[in-house]
Amino acid sequence: MATTNQRPPDRDLLSLNTATVRERWNLKEMIAGCARHGIRGISPWRDKLAELGAKEAAKMIRDHGLTVTGLCRGGMFPAADRQGRKRAIEDNLRAIDDAATIEARCLVLVVGGLPPGSKDIAGAREMVRDGIGEALDHARSSGVPLAIEPLHPMYAADRACVNTLAQALDLCDELDSGGGGALGVAVDVYHVWWDPELARGIERAGEKRILAFHICDWLVPTTDLLLDRGMMGDGVIDIPRVRAWVEQAGYRGFHEVEILSAKNWWKRDPDEVLSTMKERHERFC
Amino acid sequence: MATTNQRPPDRDLLSLNTATVRERWNLKEMIAGCARHGIRGISPWRDKLAELGAKEAAKMIRDHGLTVTGLCRGGMFPAADRQGRKRAIEDNLRAIDDAATIEARCLVLVVGGLPPGSKDIAGAREMVRDGIGEALDHARSSGVPLAIEPLHPMYAADRACVNTLAQALDLCDELDSGGGGALGVAVDVYHVWWDPELARGIERAGEKRILAFHICDWLVPTTDLLLDRGMMGDGVIDIPRVRAWVEQAGYRGFHEVEILSAKNWWKRDPDEVLSTMKERHERFC
Repeated sequence: MATTNQRPPDRDLLSLNTATVRERWNLKEMIAGCARHGIRGISPWRDKLAELGAKEAAKMIRDHGLTVTGLCRGGMFPAADRQGRKRAIEDNLRAIDDAATIEARCLVLVVGGLPPGSKDIAGAREMVRDGIGEALDHARSSGVPLAIEPLHPMYAADRACVNTLAQALDLCDELDSGGGGALGVAVDVYHVWWDPELARGIERAGEKRILAFHICDWLVPTTDLLLDRGMMGDGVIDIPRVRAWVEQAGYRGFHEVEILSAKNWWKRDPDEVLSTMKERHERFC
Repeated sequence: MATTNQRPPDRDLLSLNTATVRERWNLKEMIAGCARHGIRGISPWRDKLAELGAKEAAKMIRDHGLTVTGLCRGGMFPAADRQGRKRAIEDNLRAIDDAATIEARCLVLVVGGLPPGSKDIAGAREMVRDGIGEALDHARSSGVPLAIEPLHPMYAADRACVNTLAQALDLCDELDSGGGGALGVAVDVYHVWWDPELARGIERAGEKRILAFHICDWLVPTTDLLLDRGMMGDGVIDIPRVRAWVEQAGYRGFHEVEILSAKNWWKRDPDEVLSTMKERHERFC
């Protein structure tokens, strides 16, 4: 698929993941900032939501006419003992409640990695499957779809042992075979751009399973495994190509910008970050 | 598969990849060091081989009774223009000659990433396929099997755009459908441990396609994408499990220790590194 033939993205579909400006703004400032810059989507992390309170946040977001493209994050299911796994599930139920309060389009699941001291990644993956299974009913009855986010394999040990889109979709099929919309995936170009099976995975996912689309860029070199993500256009990811694939699959949702960047974007004036996001969205996405 | 039931590895199958002690020893010292420590395999990198000369190295390795478990490395096929791709292939032909001179069991291919300025990973993958295809006849006639090494996806941009075992095996099947032994894979636990399809991939590869087995460990946290690999036992990889899989597939070759570790192992006395390797091989592999 040629990337040059594509029309530019709809600017109304840009969304701000609060991680992108988390160091210098609180959620109030982020909501006001999005409105000021004409950015129509927002996706808060729970730490920022907790500061303001979910109800207050919901009101403010509504008042500013923003769409909540997701709540980050649930997940982190694996734990060393039964009690730990139970606590994780309870935490996910609370996250679902918060997501419902702010009318989030999904709760993003960063599923968790190996429990401390464990080398059993197959076992961790079973804990993830069981954990999602236990949270799914509450998600369904709350009207909050769960979006499994496959994370880059470099996070397999400590953040998420679901590392490919195919693996996430296998989980969806196993736990939600009807495909009723309660379980799907978040496709983040940073995590999946390298995958030789990406196009097939997106096609397989289809409209029903693609609940979120996250963008940023992979820098060369990358100097930190977690906090050195790039702004769209500064790296090597062919974002228009991936966008074309998700659109062909039927996705019509937002393009959520999530950039963890300790040395660069987190240090800048958030208004500059938002302006840059808008410009880069049009040029490189 | 339980890991605890397994018998310890055969100590005669330990091999030293020269990258592990590259900062403080030259190839002569490495060969003598292996012999002194009773390590019976060695896998030189080409920079070290060039210092000594392939013929001189071959003689010295033979005199010390070592097996050359691989030559690191060929590959790096993608380039911005035809001339660059031609140069890459010529370099691979020379590497095959060197591998033949030292009687290496394989030439390990780190296939290369994106050409400078490119975002076209599918295109880079085609260049890799074509490049291996062009080198394969010479490899076959020289009796040097080519071992495609799938590298961890975090190296997709700058080192290798072959990132899963399945992808490497698809290349093998496409270029060497007869499976005559001229083309296979190097399974390095560091690169593939996270892969949910790993067991299936190893089974699919089978004895014919597994040309090398590399070991080290994945540290948590990992502080550098390239130079922070761990000694076996210091990280989260269940090495005995992966060894059991390759042995079930019929692999009877060496266990090659390749540790790139700027802050730790490269700073230590290489004799201490080799002693530690031996001890950890018995306990954690």
